[in-house]
Amino acid sequence: MAKTPEPGDLIRVTKGKTTYTGVVMPGTLSGSSDILIIKLSNGYNIGLNKDEIEVEILEKAAPPLEKPESMRISGKGNREVVLVGTGGTIASKVEYRTGAVHPALSATELAESVPELREICSIRTKPVFNILSENISPSHWVTLAEEIYRLAEEGVDGIVVPHGTDTMHYTAAALSFMLSGTGMVFVGAQRSSDRPSSDAHLNLIEAVSTALTDIGESVVVMHGESSDSFAYIHRGNRVRKMHTSARTAFRTINGSPLGKVEGSKVEWLKPYRKQSEPELHAHLKENVVMLQAFPGLTTEILEKMAENAQGIVITGTGLGHVSSSLIPAIQEIIKEGKPVVMTSQCLYGSVNLNVYETGRDLQRAGVITLGDILPETALVKLMWVLGRTADMEEVRKIMKTNIAGEIEDRRLLRDLE
Amino acid sequence: MAKTPEPGDLIRVTKGKTTYTGVVMPGTLSGSSDILIIKLSNGYNIGLNKDEIEVEILEKAAPPLEKPESMRISGKGNREVVLVGTGGTIASKVEYRTGAVHPALSATELAESVPELREICSIRTKPVFNILSENISPSHWVTLAEEIYRLAEEGVDGIVVPHGTDTMHYTAAALSFMLSGTGMVFVGAQRSSDRPSSDAHLNLIEAVSTALTDIGESVVVMHGESSDSFAYIHRGNRVRKMHTSARTAFRTINGSPLGKVEGSKVEWLKPYRKQSEPELHAHLKENVVMLQAFPGLTTEILEKMAENAQGIVITGTGLGHVSSSLIPAIQEIIKEGKPVVMTSQCLYGSVNLNVYETGRDLQRAGVITLGDILPETALVKLMWVLGRTADMEEVRKIMKTNIAGEIEDRRLLRDLE
Repeated sequence: MAKTPEPGDLIRVTKGKTTYTGVVMPGTLSGSSDILIIKLSNGYNIGLNKDEIEVEILEKAAPPLEKPESMRISGKGNREVVLVGTGGTIASKVEYRTGAVHPALSATELAESVPELREICSIRTKPVFNILSENISPSHWVTLAEEIYRLAEEGVDGIVVPHGTDTMHYTAAALSFMLSGTGMVFVGAQRSSDRPSSDAHLNLIEAVSTALTDIGESVVVMHGESSDSFAYIHRGNRVRKMHTSARTAFRTINGSPLGKVEGSKVEWLKPYRKQSEPELHAHLKENVVMLQAFPGLTTEILEKMAENAQGIVITGTGLGHVSSSLIPAIQEIIKEGKPVVMTSQCLYGSVNLNVYETGRDLQRAGVITLGDILPETALVKLMWVLGRTADMEEVRKIMKTNIAGEIEDRRLLRDLE
Repeated sequence: MAKTPEPGDLIRVTKGKTTYTGVVMPGTLSGSSDILIIKLSNGYNIGLNKDEIEVEILEKAAPPLEKPESMRISGKGNREVVLVGTGGTIASKVEYRTGAVHPALSATELAESVPELREICSIRTKPVFNILSENISPSHWVTLAEEIYRLAEEGVDGIVVPHGTDTMHYTAAALSFMLSGTGMVFVGAQRSSDRPSSDAHLNLIEAVSTALTDIGESVVVMHGESSDSFAYIHRGNRVRKMHTSARTAFRTINGSPLGKVEGSKVEWLKPYRKQSEPELHAHLKENVVMLQAFPGLTTEILEKMAENAQGIVITGTGLGHVSSSLIPAIQEIIKEGKPVVMTSQCLYGSVNLNVYETGRDLQRAGVITLGDILPETALVKLMWVLGRTADMEEVRKIMKTNIAGEIEDRRLLRDLE
């Protein structure tokens, strides 16, 4: 093969007597570097052995976007919101040739794509990374917390973090523990911002409006209903992505959202944490695992999961149960100094180990419960607590303390009445 | 210690100069067989070293219930519904001394506790096992499927399966694949049937009414709203326990329930499968694992989970994603002949690997997707398919075929429009 086509190039391929015209796909996983994957105009992909074809490049792909840089866009008034860029669909464009969605917009381009923002305030952009949120790892949370802390120390008027929606609730929950005293408004989009049906514009406007209040905690601002009318403000550690594609995917679990934003009008529905002296607690132990209990889960699997972990979050059945056959292994894991936290795969309601014998046995084994905390929040909280101490009694004490609004005990009472 | 007190005994304990009166708790997990755990009248438990105390038994616990047997209770009309007893809260009593809930009622006692049933039909009870549902394993599903098949072959008028709610949706989904042509109505309770607030009575009456229709598939019948007005009929493989304690915990995900039952009036909301020649397909491979993707999930954990498994169901983020760093390991697992099925931890909506690059890479790696199937249903379906064939192409084909209403493709279209 004479020429080396790059992904996105439009090429004509000749294999024996047959000719194909199509776009080169990013083919790292074609199973072999000898295979070239081409998207044909009918939408189908074909894989061709590079040794058996002749390639003619008809049109080169557009050059990659330049490295995003920090920038300021002047708007109305004398206040300024900083967009801390992380990537995700909200900062994505559809690559029309391959049909795939790529994180392509810099925070600056994103801000420029929503001219309404200038009607509210000035916007400064601060790109930190530009990745799809499924690739966000706990180490990214540390970088992000440090960046936001620096901005909070600077005394900016508001901080908005555009983020991919897949793991936005994990990041928002993690930052609710890692930073206190400052507002951080996470915002995403379920459809990329260059689509007419995109929810990026409304979400971003409502996020900026929220950031300009006296909010002093980590929140998620996303569409409140299918049409473009308002957004909800969710507490960052009480929210979960509950739909793969709907605009209203983000839901506060076990209770109502903190507030509602319509245009630039913010209506608070519940007490929220106000700004105070910012504090950074960016300590994390990454090797905490999460495991859902299911019929067929064996002691062996549980022990394997625990082997190199420093802590385990189990999403049990019902009120927080696992098969009784697993309890001796759980007790052993706890004895080894690895905390085991029990949450519920039901998602709604509270864990309660006082009702059934299995629950009581789990309690005796030393399992930690946290009322109605979400499994994902329990996971990041355990990472955070283990970053602070390895002492089991200390871990239990901090886990059971309501640090950032992540546990709402009165729900427990209401649900059980 | 002279006497050996049994759990449930009321005892007086003397330790040095102090005396405690309380009820002996089942203490297998006190950490040591030398420790006796006693529930005091103030509700607190204390653990005492057996060597340091003197025990006087004040009152022996009530003797255990006799082994439940099959029985017939005559009722109105000439039709008969069989209650296939499995245990769970619906067949539970509160042990008032320890305050714990135990599976204590036989299917016969359960039927006798709801006299309204005799107004509908005769009831025959068929106890199969009597356990809390967190202890139900795939081998129980095989036993249950065989028992129900025998009853269906007999030509009974209706089959109701009282079941613990924790894993009822796993069992109902498993049986939807293992048995066809017969109706099986799963029913549970969130509060034990001897409590005034119990939902057992309404649920049982509505389940019996449903079983007397021409229903020919596995369904779950549970409270439709908080008050005692009606129950919903959920397709057994499209339902999930979505609250730890509420009566309305069971929800059909991605769509409406099959029907509604009020008193003995059944209103169908959607097409359902009618009775036909019963067929048993009770083959299962148990060693299939389920793993939720989360930030911090490593290749190492994934590989450990896969080690002794024959298949894996991943509950990915968003449209069905995992961190890109895991994709090579997933591809390796698939190459070893172990199918990997991708579902979504969002629960609502459909998996779609065509939108983002990560999804496309997962598709190229050979991951199987099943539209809007629930993760728990995907798990039992994979166990069932692997019980039939180990051929990867066959597995993929059967997994992607709608066997028992577990995949509803039109949702995919509606969600993405």
